[in-house]
Amino acid sequence: MDIMQVEDSLVCTRRIPGLARVSFRVLRGPLGERAVAVDTVGARPGNWVFTISGSAARLAVGNGILTDLSIGGIIDRWEEDATSVRD
Amino acid sequence: MDIMQVEDSLVCTRRIPGLARVSFRVLRGPLGERAVAVDTVGARPGNWVFTISGSAARLAVGNGILTDLSIGGIIDRWEEDATSVRD
Amino acid sequence: MDIMQVEDSLVCTRRIPGLARVSFRVLRGPLGERAVAVDTVGARPGNWVFTISGSAARLAVGNGILTDLSIGGIIDRWEEDATSVRD
Amino acid sequence: MDIMQVEDSLVCTRRIPGLARVSFRVLRGPLGERAVAVDTVGARPGNWVFTISGSAARLAVGNGILTDLSIGGIIDRWEEDATSVRD
Amino acid sequence: MDIMQVEDSLVCTRRIPGLARVSFRVLRGPLGERAVAVDTVGARPGNWVFTISGSAARLAVGNGILTDLSIGGIIDRWEEDATSVRD
Repeated sequence: MDIMQVEDSLVCTRRIPGLARVSFRVLRGPLGERAVAVDTVGARPGNWVFTISGSAARLAVGNGILTDLSIGGIIDRWEEDATSVRD
Repeated sequence: MDIMQVEDSLVCTRRIPGLARVSFRVLRGPLGERAVAVDTVGARPGNWVFTISGSAARLAVGNGILTDLSIGGIIDRWEEDATSVRD
Repeated sequence: MDIMQVEDSLVCTRRIPGLARVSFRVLRGPLGERAVAVDTVGARPGNWVFTISGSAARLAVGNGILTDLSIGGIIDRWEEDATSVRD
Repeated sequence: MDIMQVEDSLVCTRRIPGLARVSFRVLRGPLGERAVAVDTVGARPGNWVFTISGSAARLAVGNGILTDLSIGGIIDRWEEDATSVRD
Repeated sequence: MDIMQVEDSLVCTRRIPGLARVSFRVLRGPLGERAVAVDTVGARPGNWVFTISGSAARLAVGNGILTDLSIGGIIDRWEEDATSVRD
């Protein structure tokens, strides 16, 4: 599981049926890389979260949602600087 | 799930049976890396899309298609600059 | 499986149901990258461990825990310098 | 799926039973990285191919072959320069 | 599948039950990165091997062993220089 920060929501009108009614978040990792995750815990922009990938991501949100990345939880405390790998 | 831009189609006359009748798109990620995805939503060159990888990619397009990357949806608005991780 | 060092615990009050009662560890890899793993072997900060990813991570800890990374064991002896890839 | 070029065959006399009678190809990616794939389409050195990874790789070649990377098809036309990510 | 060189064995007294009686090898990839794999073919330090990852790694060694990386075979001939991606 990875630690990422919620940046924004993602608006996609045209989607595959298996992702029709889910809420997407654009996340940003410690190196600035972006990823899109399904959110079922209500994460807001600025929140630090941990993400679940692979088949566990699908099982984690259930309901036949065909994702490969899901938000697993919101981290209570996280210092942004601590995530830099170049310090 | 990742955010990538559709670059082109991919012509492959000789394929394995499990990919016989699918439409391929060459995608380009924020760092310039390329990937090939199955497209069932009708994405066009220049569109920004999000991709589903792993076993979810296969379930997302169904019909026994043996892909490890599928286009999950077309993003309504995306600024190309915003995907740079070196800004 | 990867070799990583235990850095800290991770406090997440709000989580998905499939990770409700598990113990998380923040791990640090040889390049400084961080990851979050489920711990069922009782690893302590400073321990070097090896991690299991993917569906094996889930099977390794059982009980329907929806993780994509689990600590597989504590390494008896490991020299930190030996993990540098730039020496 | 990724675009790679066939470099050579790989000779392995001692193998696990699940890969006993398969044909291996050493592939080279756009950044020069190498990978080993099972080939059931008859790709030759110099061919550009696309590869399938993960559980789809196993399903793609069938017969209980325990691979994590399979050649999915031979690309009809591909310009080598176009695969550079640093141009 | 990836090409790596066997570096050493790994001693782990405390492990999860699903990896209780297996033999681990520390492998080193072309960029110097390390990984831990289950070995059922009897690879020795210095051998070049190819590795199987993901769910195929588990199926490849059987017996309910919960690994995400297994040695698939020993390569008969491999030139170390040829694995450099920076030549």
